[in-house]
Parts: sequence; C-alpha cells; structure tokens
Amino acid sequence: MNETTGRPYLAIPGPSVMPEAVLRAMHRSAPNIYEGELVEMMPGLTADLCRVARTDGHVAIYISNGHGAWEAALANVVAPGEKVLVPATGRFGHGWGEIADGLGAEVDLLDFGKQAPVDMERLETALRADKSHEIKAVLATHVDTSTSIRNDIKAMRAVLDRVGHPALLMVDCIASLACDRFEMDAWGVDVMVAASQKGLMVPPGLGFVFFNSKAAEVRRGMARVSRYWDWTFRAEPEMFYQYFGGTAPTHHLYGLRTALDMIHAEGLEAVWDRHERLARAIWVACDIWGQGGPLALNVVDEAHRSHAVTSLRIGAPHGTELRAWLEREAEVTLGIGLGMAEPGDPAWHGFFRMGHMGHVNAHMVLGMLASVNTGLQALGVPHGAGALDAAAKVLAEKGNSLAAGQPNDEPVQSVGCCQDCG
Amino acid sequence: MNETTGRPYLAIPGPSVMPEAVLRAMHRSAPNIYEGELVEMMPGLTADLCRVARTDGHVAIYISNGHGAWEAALANVVAPGEKVLVPATGRFGHGWGEIADGLGAEVDLLDFGKQAPVDMERLETALRADKSHEIKAVLATHVDTSTSIRNDIKAMRAVLDRVGHPALLMVDCIASLACDRFEMDAWGVDVMVAASQKGLMVPPGLGFVFFNSKAAEVRRGMARVSRYWDWTFRAEPEMFYQYFGGTAPTHHLYGLRTALDMIHAEGLEAVWDRHERLARAIWVACDIWGQGGPLALNVVDEAHRSHAVTSLRIGAPHGTELRAWLEREAEVTLGIGLGMAEPGDPAWHGFFRMGHMGHVNAHMVLGMLASVNTGLQALGVPHGAGALDAAAKVLAEKGNSLAAGQPNDEPVQSVGCCQDCG
Amino acid sequence: MNETTGRPYLAIPGPSVMPEAVLRAMHRSAPNIYEGELVEMMPGLTADLCRVARTDGHVAIYISNGHGAWEAALANVVAPGEKVLVPATGRFGHGWGEIADGLGAEVDLLDFGKQAPVDMERLETALRADKSHEIKAVLATHVDTSTSIRNDIKAMRAVLDRVGHPALLMVDCIASLACDRFEMDAWGVDVMVAASQKGLMVPPGLGFVFFNSKAAEVRRGMARVSRYWDWTFRAEPEMFYQYFGGTAPTHHLYGLRTALDMIHAEGLEAVWDRHERLARAIWVACDIWGQGGPLALNVVDEAHRSHAVTSLRIGAPHGTELRAWLEREAEVTLGIGLGMAEPGDPAWHGFFRMGHMGHVNAHMVLGMLASVNTGLQALGVPHGAGALDAAAKVLAEKGNSLAAGQPNDEPVQSVGCCQDCG
Amino acid sequence: MNETTGRPYLAIPGPSVMPEAVLRAMHRSAPNIYEGELVEMMPGLTADLCRVARTDGHVAIYISNGHGAWEAALANVVAPGEKVLVPATGRFGHGWGEIADGLGAEVDLLDFGKQAPVDMERLETALRADKSHEIKAVLATHVDTSTSIRNDIKAMRAVLDRVGHPALLMVDCIASLACDRFEMDAWGVDVMVAASQKGLMVPPGLGFVFFNSKAAEVRRGMARVSRYWDWTFRAEPEMFYQYFGGTAPTHHLYGLRTALDMIHAEGLEAVWDRHERLARAIWVACDIWGQGGPLALNVVDEAHRSHAVTSLRIGAPHGTELRAWLEREAEVTLGIGLGMAEPGDPAWHGFFRMGHMGHVNAHMVLGMLASVNTGLQALGVPHGAGALDAAAKVLAEKGNSLAAGQPNDEPVQSVGCCQDCG
Repeated sequence: MNETTGRPYLAIPGPSVMPEAVLRAMHRSAPNIYEGELVEMMPGLTADLCRVARTDGHVAIYISNGHGAWEAALANVVAPGEKVLVPATGRFGHGWGEIADGLGAEVDLLDFGKQAPVDMERLETALRADKSHEIKAVLATHVDTSTSIRNDIKAMRAVLDRVGHPALLMVDCIASLACDRFEMDAWGVDVMVAASQKGLMVPPGLGFVFFNSKAAEVRRGMARVSRYWDWTFRAEPEMFYQYFGGTAPTHHLYGLRTALDMIHAEGLEAVWDRHERLARAIWVACDIWGQGGPLALNVVDEAHRSHAVTSLRIGAPHGTELRAWLEREAEVTLGIGLGMAEPGDPAWHGFFRMGHMGHVNAHMVLGMLASVNTGLQALGVPHGAGALDAAAKVLAEKGNSLAAGQPNDEPVQSVGCCQDCG
Repeated sequence: MNETTGRPYLAIPGPSVMPEAVLRAMHRSAPNIYEGELVEMMPGLTADLCRVARTDGHVAIYISNGHGAWEAALANVVAPGEKVLVPATGRFGHGWGEIADGLGAEVDLLDFGKQAPVDMERLETALRADKSHEIKAVLATHVDTSTSIRNDIKAMRAVLDRVGHPALLMVDCIASLACDRFEMDAWGVDVMVAASQKGLMVPPGLGFVFFNSKAAEVRRGMARVSRYWDWTFRAEPEMFYQYFGGTAPTHHLYGLRTALDMIHAEGLEAVWDRHERLARAIWVACDIWGQGGPLALNVVDEAHRSHAVTSLRIGAPHGTELRAWLEREAEVTLGIGLGMAEPGDPAWHGFFRMGHMGHVNAHMVLGMLASVNTGLQALGVPHGAGALDAAAKVLAEKGNSLAAGQPNDEPVQSVGCCQDCG
Repeated sequence: MNETTGRPYLAIPGPSVMPEAVLRAMHRSAPNIYEGELVEMMPGLTADLCRVARTDGHVAIYISNGHGAWEAALANVVAPGEKVLVPATGRFGHGWGEIADGLGAEVDLLDFGKQAPVDMERLETALRADKSHEIKAVLATHVDTSTSIRNDIKAMRAVLDRVGHPALLMVDCIASLACDRFEMDAWGVDVMVAASQKGLMVPPGLGFVFFNSKAAEVRRGMARVSRYWDWTFRAEPEMFYQYFGGTAPTHHLYGLRTALDMIHAEGLEAVWDRHERLARAIWVACDIWGQGGPLALNVVDEAHRSHAVTSLRIGAPHGTELRAWLEREAEVTLGIGLGMAEPGDPAWHGFFRMGHMGHVNAHMVLGMLASVNTGLQALGVPHGAGALDAAAKVLAEKGNSLAAGQPNDEPVQSVGCCQDCG
Repeated sequence: MNETTGRPYLAIPGPSVMPEAVLRAMHRSAPNIYEGELVEMMPGLTADLCRVARTDGHVAIYISNGHGAWEAALANVVAPGEKVLVPATGRFGHGWGEIADGLGAEVDLLDFGKQAPVDMERLETALRADKSHEIKAVLATHVDTSTSIRNDIKAMRAVLDRVGHPALLMVDCIASLACDRFEMDAWGVDVMVAASQKGLMVPPGLGFVFFNSKAAEVRRGMARVSRYWDWTFRAEPEMFYQYFGGTAPTHHLYGLRTALDMIHAEGLEAVWDRHERLARAIWVACDIWGQGGPLALNVVDEAHRSHAVTSLRIGAPHGTELRAWLEREAEVTLGIGLGMAEPGDPAWHGFFRMGHMGHVNAHMVLGMLASVNTGLQALGVPHGAGALDAAAKVLAEKGNSLAAGQPNDEPVQSVGCCQDCG
C-alpha cells in the first residue's frame, strides 16, 4: 500500500484521473466472449467512438498504447521506402516520425521548435516542393503533449487542398480527443490516432485508429500489412475476435463503454467547453504568478494552447522542487517537463506540466492551482499574488457553467459506423 | 449513474471521504466466519482501536451508527429512572440527552447555546448541587458536529474530581476521534462513544463504545441490560460471534483493518497535526472573507474550534445558494447548517458547514476553499480578497509538514486490550 | 492475502455468497446524504423490500445484524414484564427468546427439540391455557438456521384464530426471506424480522422489521420505546436521516438496491422455485450417501425442510474432518453444526450444515455436492454411490428450469408502502 | 447488468477466471508513472515472470493480446523473405504461421492434423532437407488451445540438436504457461510467447516475449525492427516508459504483480501439479461418459493432452445444445469447438472445449463436470454413469493434495533477469 493522507490528485497529462464509474465497470469476472452482453455491445461502442471523433468513417481498436496506435496507423498506409512529411511541434511529433522511420519510411521533418505551432507557409512550401507527390502522408500532431502546443488542423487541410497535394492528412489526437474541439470529417482528416488513457478516461491499454474512405482506399493498395496492425477486419469484422485481431480486451471494453456513456451524457460540446474554461482559469493564474516571478506559460498565443495540458517553465531547480513539494505536501502529482531539455542537463529541472484532461472539474483544478500557489510560497519562489482570485473570476463568469447542461448530442449506439472500409 | 464531470468532493462532516484502500478492502467475497483471516484479525483490531482512543481499557463494537452507539453506551450503565447530566453545546449534545430520555433516564440539561463551549463554573455548580450523587453520568460532547464547538474534556474531569462527584464521565467523540487530540485514559474518561464514518474513514455501519474498569464495575451493578447492547461479551468474547452479538459485519471489518493500518502508519500524532494545520488554513481563509462581507466562523475562540468540522454563518439565502453553486459548478458538497435554525425558518438558509475529517489533504481542502472563493464571486456575495494566499501561507510554513513523517506509535496489533471487563 | 488456488465457495447458511454486482455497487465514494440519488432511492427501496415480504405493511431498516432486528421488533411491542410464547425448533428459536428475556419479558418456552417442527396441538393447548390473554406475542421461527427445520407459519395463524387469541404473530424469516415461500399478509403475520446477509445477498449490516397495522397499534400503546429501536419514524420518516435513526448505511443501501433489482428481475416466484429445486438435488444426494453410510439429513419430513440450509449428522469426528477436507482440498466452506451438541462435547464433531441461499445456482451446488462426494471418498467414510447422478436427475427434469424465466412480478419501486404506522 | 442467479463459471480456455485479488489490485486510481511504487516494482515483476518461464533470459512486455505477442516475437528475429518452419497441431499453430506470412516470411507448414502431436520423425526429415539452413526459426506450439494437444518441446530441441540445425526454437506457451510444466532454459527454447489471460490469471491486454542470448544475437543482426515490436529497450530499459514502448499498462501491472505473488506463494511445481490432477479428474469423467455414448476426448494419448484445456467431440448438434443448456441452467460457459469444423458446417455443433486453467480448484471443476453430467441427462444424450464418482476417486487419492503446500521456490523479486540482451 502506498501511504497517503488524503485522496491523491494525479495532474499529469495522461494517464488521467480514472472515473470511479469506469473502474467499477472494469471490476468484474471475465465475461463470455462468444455471445451475450460483451459481443452485443460492440456496434454501439464503435458508433459512440466515431461520434467523439466527429466522423462517419471507421474505427479500428487495438490493444496497445498510443505508440502502438501510431505504428498501426502507419502500417496500413505507408510502405517501407515511402515518404512522410512530419511537421513537429514537440517531442511527440518527433516520436511519430521515429515510428515511421522504424517502419522503413523516409521521413521529412519540419521542426517548428518547442514554443510555436506549425507555420502554414513553411508547410505549404514543403508540399509545393514535392512536385512528384512522393509524400504519401502528412503526420500532424493536434496537441503535442510535451509542449502543449495545439495546431490548426483545419488550416493544414486547407494548405493541402490549396497545393492540390494528394497526401493523406494523418493526425495524432492522443492528447486532445474529447478535450479540445476536433472535427474529423469537417476538417478533412483522413486518419486519426488516439488512445484510451487521456480524454477517454480509461486506463492505458487501448489504441484507436479512425480512418475515412480515402485512407481505406490507400490501404487496399498496400502490398502487405502485418496481421496485427491490419485495420481491415478490425473495422469491419465478421466475428467478434476480429475486432481485436485475437482475444478481446474484455475489461477495458466495459470501462470504455462507461466512459463513452459519461461523455455523451454530458454532451461533447459541453465536454469541450468545460476543458476550455478550466484551461482559461489555469492560464490566468499562471499569468498572475508570472507577473511577479520566473514562472511562464510555454505557449504565448492562447489560440495555440491545449485545453488539456499546460507546459510551463520556471527555471531550474524550481520545476523539480515544486513538483516534489506538491507531491509530498499536497499529494498532487504534476507532470515532468518533457523534451524541453535533456534529462542530464540541469536546465531539465526548470520545466513542468499540468494535466487537466478528461475527468476533471473546478475543485480538482482549483485545488491544484491553490497547491501550486502554496508550493511557490513554501519554496520562496517569487510570484505574483492573487492568482486564485483571478482564476475564480474566470470560473465565476455569468452565462457559462461547468455543470453538464442539456446534452447536445443524443446517445445513439447505432449498429455501426462503417460503410466501405477495405 | 449519477453524472459527474470530475471527481466529486464530499466536504460534509461525515460520512467523510472513504480512502480507496478501504473501499478496495471491502470489495471481497464473504469470508469464512468460523476460522481463518477474519477471526484471527480481531485481537489486533481491537488493540489498534484502543490505541486510537489512547486507552488501555476495553472496546465493544456494534453494528450501528453513532446514535446506536449512544444508546449502547447508556444501556450498559444507566437504568430507567436514573439521572444523567447533559452539558450541551449543540444539536448533538441535545440528541444524546434525548436518547437517554428514550431509555427512561431523568435528564438534567445544561444548555450552553450554539456558539460557546461548556462553562466549567456552571458545570461545577450543577455537580455541587447534586449532594446525594444522583447524577450517575455526565454526557459530554467532545466536538459537537452541528456547532463545531470543541469542549475541554480534561477540564470536565478536573471539575468532577474537584467536586468529588462519582458520576461517570461519558464522552461523545463521534466527530473528533482520529481528528482532534483525545486521550481517554490520561484525561480520565470512563466511557467514550465513536463511529466508523468520520475520522475512522470507514462507511457508516459500525459504532464503538470504549470503557474503563470503573464503567465495567457500574455495568456489573445493573439489574438488566439488553442483550444487543450489553458490552460484556462484545469486549471479552469467548467465541467470534460474541464480538458482534450475532453475525459479524464482515466487510466493514476489512475496511476498518485497512483504515487503522493507515492511521498508525501515518502516526496518530501526525494525523492530529494534519487536521490542525488544515483547519488553521480554513480559519484564516474564512477570516479574510469575513473582513469584506457577511461570512463568519461560528466559534470565536480558536481553542474551542474543532479541527474536523467548521460551522459558518453567512446570512440567508447565501448559505443555501453557496452550497448549491458549489455542488453544481465545482462538484463540492458542503454540509448544511444543523440546529442553528429550524428548517422552515428562512434563517436556516444562512448557515453551512465544511467537513475536513479523516482522509483529507491540502489539495482537497485548498480546492474546497478555492471553490468557495469562486462561488462567493459568482453569487456576488461580498467577501475579502486574498483568502487563498492567506491559506497558502499557513500551509507553507517551515518546520511543519503535512507529509506523513515518522510514525510515533508502533503498530502493535497485540492479542487484546481487555483485562477485567465485566 | 488469504492464499487460494481457485475461487473459494462459501456454503454456509449466511453470510451467503455476495453477487459481484452487489459488491460493485458498494464500491463507491461516500454519497451526498442531503439530496440526490441516495435520498431519492428510498421510497422505491422500501417498496421493493415489502414486495419481497409480500406485504402492504411497513418496514423499518436498522443498521444491525439479525440479533439486533430481533431486539428491535420486540422493543416496539413487548414491555418489560409482559409475556411472550416461544415455540422453539432450534438454537435460534431459543436465541430470540433470550433476547426477549434480556428486555425483561416473561418468556414461555415450548421446546420441540432439534428434529421436529412446531406441533400445532401443543401450541394450541398453550394458547388455550392463557385464558387471560397475557401472552402478548408468539415468537415463531420460519426456518431455524441451526436445525434447518421449516415451520408452517400459516398453520400457526390458524391456531391463533381458532383459539381466538389476540397475541401478535411475530416471525423470524432471517434464514428464509427470498429463499422459501413466505406470504406475510396472506398468512396473517403481524411482525416479521429479517437481515441482509442471507437471501437478500448483501453483506451483514442491515436488519429489517416488517409490521402491519395491528402491530403499529400495539406500538402506539407502549409506554416507552428506545429511540434507536423505535420503528415509528424509520417506517414513516419526514427526513432522510429518520429512516435510519441517524447516519444512513450509505454503502449497504447501494448494495441492497442492486440485490432487490436482481430478485425482482428474476421474479420472486422464480427465486423460490430455484431454491426448492436446488434443495431437492441436495436432499437426494444426501439420501444416496446415507444409504451406504452414516450421513443423514436432520429433518426427516421434506415438507419441513428449509430450501436454504440443510443440517446433517454424520457422526464424530467425520463432520469436522469432512469440513476440514473440503476447506483445504476443494476450497468449499461448509457450515458447522450449531446447537446440536455442546462445543466441548466430542459429539459436536458429528454435525455440519450446507448453506444454499441467495446467490446460488446449479454449478455452485453441484460443485459442493461433488466436493463432498470426493471428501467422503478421501476420508474413507462409507457412503452410497451415484449421488451426483441422482442429483443430476433432479435438476435435469423437463418442464422445470433454473433459468430466470419471465418475472412474474413487475418492478414497481413506488413511492411508499406505508399507510398508517404509528 | 447481465442477470444471473448465482456466480457464473467461465470454463473456456481463456480468458480464464480472474482471481478476486487480481481484480481488486486493478481497481485503483491511476498511479504516478514517474516514480514510486509502480516504477519500483518493475525489476521484481520481470524477475518473477522469468521464474514462471524457468529462464534466466530476458522478457519483453507488450500491451497486446497473444496474436500481438506472436507478431512481436517474429518481428525481432525474422525479416521479410526469410523462412520459418511451422509444425502445426491445431488452429493456433496455423495462426502463428499466418502471422509470419503477414510479416512477409516464407512459411513451410508441417500439418499434423487435429488429433496428433508433432511427429518428430517428420520434423527431423524437414530439417534435414534444409541443408542450406534457410529455416531461420521453428514456430512450435506447446499446447494448441483448439485441439488441446500438448507437444513435446524438449524432443523438438533434441531433433534440432541431432540434425545440427541452427534455427531458433520459438514456442507458443500462451495456453500452457503456469499450467503445464515448461522449462525454457532446460529445454533449450530460444524464444517463448505468452499472454496474460490464461494461466497468468490477468485480464487480456498483456503479451510477453521471453528470449535468450542466442535470440538476442539474432535480433542484433536484423536490418530493421519496428519500434513498437522491438524488444531491445523493453527488455533492458533505461527509463520506465521504455519497458512498454510508451505509456505503461498501469492497471494491468498491478494485476500481474498480484497474480505472480499468488503463483509463487503456491509454488510453481504445486501449480503444475494442481492442473494435472484436475485434468486427470476431467479425463476420467469423460472416459466414463464416453463408455455409454458419443462423447470422446479429442486427444487419445494422455501424454499429449493439455492440463489446461480439453477438446471434446460429441456429435452434432449435441455440442452446441450442451453448451446452451449449461449456460442457461447452470451458468457454466464451456468453450466452443475451434478449428474442428467450419462454422457453417453442421458438424461444427459436435465439438466443444473445457477450460481449466489458472485460478481453478476442485469445486470449480467438479461443479463443471457435475453440470455436464446433468446436461447430458437433461438432453437425453447417452452417457455412462458414475462419472463424478470416478472423478472423486482421482481427487481423493492419498499422498496427493491440491492444497497449496510448501512453496518450493522462494519469492525473489530480484533486480533483473537480463544480462546481455541486445
């Protein structure tokens, strides 16, 4: 038993806080996998997943983490020797590129650093330069969990269209799905990758690849796709085990069913609103602290900040000390800085992140901010006063409410979301 | 399913927040009740309960709530027609008196109102007036959950001794055990009553009566004690079922075992310190708010404030509105005002309470305070600024730590705590 | 951790096997006790309890075990000095009488031994002899858990009516409710006592007292009833806490809600049928074993055997040895013999019991019988062959099914079951 | 809620019955993934996994099912265009071959049908024919879950050695690990594949690849291995996330820790003995039934029968009818026949399987057998009498015990099992 004096709060950017109802749903005997409840719940489950992604396309579920989902998505549409373009805005952008490299793809990297979003002009230039259309896919990151930069996916589609480039637009929504607004079909995304342990509020263990008909067509043109990664039967199975390319992740499926029920009961728009308002409360508090000391938000432009994770810089060794103080004195675990400095570099200790994704409310976030406020005080780190009063002002605004209102999207759980996958 | 958007925080003065480890321990098949783990854990369990009460005396465990434990304690030492003296400092003081009345006792009430502790002079006067020693017991309340007044039990013993009155000193520690310092033996308490759902962090369902040899002697002099309430065999059983006067509360016992492990791993002194520091953070925040508006702590003198529950007055309808706002917008449930005004009276809506007992840490309490801060803002209730900064200052103090330090009392779980009960 | 190699099976007559869904429902944070889900579920909960008891009367819920419920029932209708008649058919019949004695009642005992049901002629004689109607209540046991004798409650009512005796007919259904057919209103029962941990499939911790208008009238005539046991406000509360005379048994209520859902989803008649068919399978297996050795059912007449518990005699030390073998080698826990011999008496080791109540199906019971069959073989206890084939024959009968059929009683969960309690 | 009347018993060959302690361990908040309990438990966890595999080699853990582990193992040592030899004794042997084909390997299949083990002479012939040593690996199945054939792995190694063939011996132990005796190092196995949901008693979601230095050397010679499948960093990580190639399967790790504790507390030899004795009880019952009717064990030779799964043939439509009867009337779920006939073929309904792996004891198995006995009776399928008496005889044998005896292997949880992986 890990000794605690109260309920610990895990404020890292994933795994996020698991709802009690999700954990309860997973606490059950192994179910019948031939027929009955589990088998029958699948069409509704995939339909409700597609609703979260705002797509009428297809979804393949993998027993994997997000890295596995990255690999799965690529394995279906990019063959060894083919080229991908990776506009990176943080460690995870690079990471997806490394996965592509590991599969034998030729990786063209556009590195936008650690504090700026994708520059559409540079992207356009790169695509225009590819006159022979060798770039088979653009691997974009909606939100990079390391830098907390949020990129404008809709704008990337516009660039591709303007250039007339046929590359697939593949998007990593691991840190943004069910947190930040994302409209797969409306924004023209061909392939989207997600995982269970962030906005979807289920323990790590499931990866998701959503894809549209164009991507399905590309898949059909592949000479060979490994059996485990092949999305064909997963998205359009004839038998239950084909959903998972083997044994089903029985307990996770019950957890996911419950999490999707929660999301659609609140309403996806309400979920996005909640994340945005809580993020704004965090930003204003950080700005206040920063006015009197070294703490600063990593992303300057609000329009490019994630609503689910916030990267901060405070100068070494304050970042590490603050995390340690909060862990010990307030039982709040903040995220380490990732990709901002090398682990051996003393500068590494100057970064940290706040996670505020999924199952999160005002009490949790305000408690985290008030704990940081206390930690800054305890450690003697200079900081502006009144951060919590300022955060209160944001959350107290009239006309907005964090309370789940009328769900704006009806629970459907229809028979399936797939029409023509290949 | 109750829909929530994050982890709700129940900040009422009991039932308190149940630790995950306690709930997990209770999630199990029904155990063998004839032999094995459950049967063997009992001597250690009662010993560890007595350590929390700081007594070498006896403990009887009841399947009941606190009201049942009140009745159990009285049933063993007060016969119909006998007299008890009840110094009341809130609704629960009166409540215990009513239980005594229901058992046929003659109840002498000393009412100290809703904002002041027991006045030792009045108590002394009352005891001196009882020249024939008809008062068999003084029914004291350590902390009255309704008013959050904490009484000086040690001083009451001093009064009894000074007067030379033989009455039993019986104390209700339902809202204080494992929260506020309490030393049963050192303070000369004869009978103490507690329950599972507050500082002991176990779901409602267990009542406890601790008693010393003097009380056991009084019990032996009783003409008749009902079988269910009789503490004799419960405290000194020959067979397992006698601990509980019938079927054992199997699942609660596993929860209690875990909770006691947590308390003694942290160390009882550390547990008390933690409650005190968190209470002080709450008080200072409330004082700040009160400087700019109607909110006020119910108990003026810090020395007489509970460390586990705080009663507040804010004026109708602000109390009820604030509770409703926090429930809806921050998923924080505050306690209703109890016994301060009649439910039908509009004034009733001017009171509320904060619970901060048991499984509670800085994140939880700071999050509650920051949520109240936000609610006051949202509702336009005038209040002073900087409450959270002030609370931070309290919790940031050097030389103190909420982190569980070195446990100051060794886990014993010895064979028993009883020597001569009757 | 208690080490096991597979899933242990607790085949004792209570606590019974807790359904996974019940335990899951109890694994939750402490709920809001002022409003919301828990408060709103109460009227439906009491209504569904009354449906299990087949009564339009009232129910009071106690945080207690069965012994507490015995005391609660008596405390409401029998004053010290008043007389009760106790027709006992086992240890628990005597036990209820002892509780009455502990409350100061005068107890007239009719002892029918350990293998026979209540003899209606002796009962009639005793009632006729009470010309002045001093007997205020008859304390009957529907099923005595120690002997597994089931008494004919309807016939007792007939005797009372025939004699024209006004005594209350009070019945202990602790071991029979939701197992054996019981029709409170149709059979003319005035007060009925039950508990959570047997047919109701919820961990120990709740006691129930059902009562009709006649009993409510008797209650109103009582000079004094202790506050904790008084059923008046519990059965007809104005505020939530009054249901429980103080703090609610929060987690148990969620478990009970789930258990009642399961019972009414299966249908009460189907539940009774299932218990009967499983009991018949057990009896036939025991009869076969007995044809070749010392094992014998305690109750000769099938019409007087419980469908939920079976008492057996096999001769010392076989009983104890068999229990030990099954515990160790098959992880099946059988019940000890209770009340058949004194614990110190070597004969004590010749008795044991099988529990088959509540959450029980063919696999569980057949597995227990096959384990006993194996134990008899391993220990060299002579026994007839073919017991499992015979049990199979019973459960294979056409036209009967253990499968939950069409529920014959509609889920109601109406607002209340109480009309005129006092 | 799936309605049940008692505790369902899932007697399929995986997912197996999850121990209560495993599920309880998984019911927890998401943990800190940077430091603390979870991070610190890893060296002990991998060491204890290696002990179950009886190897001093390495283990890589994958978030995947068994099919994923198949692919992972191959991806590390077999490049597209390279040749593997697959001696198949059931559907899963073929399945592994298909995975190899999906990765671009050239697959030489030796098909031994559905009722016989690998014929060592044919294997030797095939290897001798490969004079240029093009076969890079032999993909053997220890137990094929579809046919329940158990192959002699030690003998395969002897063949390879005799022939002097350098191919890697890769073994699928998905259905046998922690059920049937398996000695990775002593038997000369180079790569072994397993998964969490069978003998390891953890919900589906983890795949394991064990490998020795020879295999690690082959890995180092590979031109490219995909990042997700690469075992290098998983087996010898420098940072926690590298164990899992990304986010850790947090909750499964707690379950696995508990399951390994259970296995080593019982002792691996005792675990194997338990599976063998329970299997023998099943076989003898099936033989008795078969003497009077159509039921027959699929594998004739005891020496080649799995101790964890039993395939049976009974003739259509008896197989499907029997499964349906047991599901409905006894809440026992048997496994479907797999790979014995095509799903559309009426003959498909003549096969079924019993799972008896992992968390399984005499009560569970005897209950399943007695339920089958009852089902045969109910359905009028001819069968021999006395099957349960015969099974009892097996389990009642003196000198053997299913009870966990003295663990023969000490819990080690040492720092690591890896010395030189590449």
